[in-house]
Amino acid sequence: MSDVTFPSRVSVREVGPRDGLQNEDPVPADAKVELIDALGRTGLRRIEAVSFVHPKAIPQMADADEVWSRVRRSPDIRYSALVPNVRGAERALAAGFTELEVVVSASDTHNRRNINRSTAESLADLPELASLVHSAGGTLQLIVSTAWGCPYEGDVPVSRVLSVVSSGARAGVDSLAYGDTTGMATPPRVTRLVEETRAAHPSLPLGLHFHNTRGTGLANVYAALQLGVDDFDASVGGLGGCPYAPGASGNIATEELVYLLEDMGIDTGVDLPALIEVAGLAERLVGRKLDSQVLRAGPAVR
Amino acid sequence: MSDVTFPSRVSVREVGPRDGLQNEDPVPADAKVELIDALGRTGLRRIEAVSFVHPKAIPQMADADEVWSRVRRSPDIRYSALVPNVRGAERALAAGFTELEVVVSASDTHNRRNINRSTAESLADLPELASLVHSAGGTLQLIVSTAWGCPYEGDVPVSRVLSVVSSGARAGVDSLAYGDTTGMATPPRVTRLVEETRAAHPSLPLGLHFHNTRGTGLANVYAALQLGVDDFDASVGGLGGCPYAPGASGNIATEELVYLLEDMGIDTGVDLPALIEVAGLAERLVGRKLDSQVLRAGPAVR
Repeated sequence: MSDVTFPSRVSVREVGPRDGLQNEDPVPADAKVELIDALGRTGLRRIEAVSFVHPKAIPQMADADEVWSRVRRSPDIRYSALVPNVRGAERALAAGFTELEVVVSASDTHNRRNINRSTAESLADLPELASLVHSAGGTLQLIVSTAWGCPYEGDVPVSRVLSVVSSGARAGVDSLAYGDTTGMATPPRVTRLVEETRAAHPSLPLGLHFHNTRGTGLANVYAALQLGVDDFDASVGGLGGCPYAPGASGNIATEELVYLLEDMGIDTGVDLPALIEVAGLAERLVGRKLDSQVLRAGPAVR
Repeated sequence: MSDVTFPSRVSVREVGPRDGLQNEDPVPADAKVELIDALGRTGLRRIEAVSFVHPKAIPQMADADEVWSRVRRSPDIRYSALVPNVRGAERALAAGFTELEVVVSASDTHNRRNINRSTAESLADLPELASLVHSAGGTLQLIVSTAWGCPYEGDVPVSRVLSVVSSGARAGVDSLAYGDTTGMATPPRVTRLVEETRAAHPSLPLGLHFHNTRGTGLANVYAALQLGVDDFDASVGGLGGCPYAPGASGNIATEELVYLLEDMGIDTGVDLPALIEVAGLAERLVGRKLDSQVLRAGPAVR
């Protein structure tokens, strides 16, 4: 293994304010703004700030417009918004976002429960969505959730994931991310899906979004690094959790990801001690003990 | 990465009853016996049962003789005991153990704080210890702790670790294990130490003992699997914790390790649902929420 070349730099997208807080008890807009602003001072260069979803479906994000209007935006940071459909994209663009993500589940049952439509119906909207975003000068990322397993259907075949990606590529999405919604991924599954995706879509930029629900989050990151993947999502403090496994982790914790990468000599641009401080803030804001180990243990003694 | 060959089978040593309980508030002998017996019904084939240390140093293990005398020993299971010195080895052999482990820290400060002697003093005892164990028909493993970092000294040079191993090899130890006492290891550090150890001692069997104190435990396992390492320690439920980082994890959780390995098609012989049941028992016995994700999330939906 000594001959593997890792990326020299990794781009970390912080998803705590959106994917994290969406899976916590609701917190006030003040707290969200404070968290986003604090994250912006750690050296993170990408923050998924809010989602524009129906407030009845996800009450935690009902104040997306208010939160976004109050964030002290840094010109050095790319902020993004997640949308489930064309209506959400219109709201995100109206609010001034230029970096949008649309989420589609590879498994039909999860897509129906998550956004009340079949996977095929979601995919059918992609051309209009991409054209809407592009004509406003923005970019659209397709996030394929349940890419390594569905809480209702179990294993999801690689062929089904690739078929969703092909629809996205035809619709003209600018990039792709895979979400391990259930934390069922393990390194060989990651390797296989990344390799097959690259073979089919060599020029589509690929990011990975791992959950630590079964403890394998950083092992999956390591497997992906060996393939040169240099774009990962993570959530400060491991904010979030897993709606399908109460008490288990959701997103990998950003400070654990940064710890791993920086120790490997891979530049993230993030100030780890500052980030750990923000993980502590996140914990206070949600009022529960978060699952991050690096938040407890701190950086290594050197 | 697709061309890497993983081991077809991994031998898991369960260390919860010893390394785990040693770092928890004391539990009664009854609970220890119940835990060891329950672990023995999960398909695990190696259990580190107790340690023979001075009761003033580690009161949690003061009842080692009583616990061991009451375990319903299975002929299919290899039980082992940890000892800090010759006196401990005499007690372990007198109690009927034939598989002994002696622990020596690669970092001098940790060895002094852990067993009140310098590393050199511990190493000087190894020939007598090995000869004592061998003449009783037993085997002796050298566990090198702080192999990837010391809570007092920080980074530990590979050369210092290898020097400890050389002393052990000269003394005739039968096998070697590396302990990541502080959870500071990351995959490239694991790869380097394993490769250099094999180059220097190609015939010495090597096991690895990872902690998840900074979230990298299973990533380290995955890196070692790529090198063909097929012998890992783990603690049911992640029992234990880290004395140097209150609230952080200690040993990797056995059910997380087994989840990873079995999903990769690597045979462990362990019944994962049965093991998760025992992790729940461990949690009740120590009366605190343990850090195992698989204990919360369960096996994957297939």
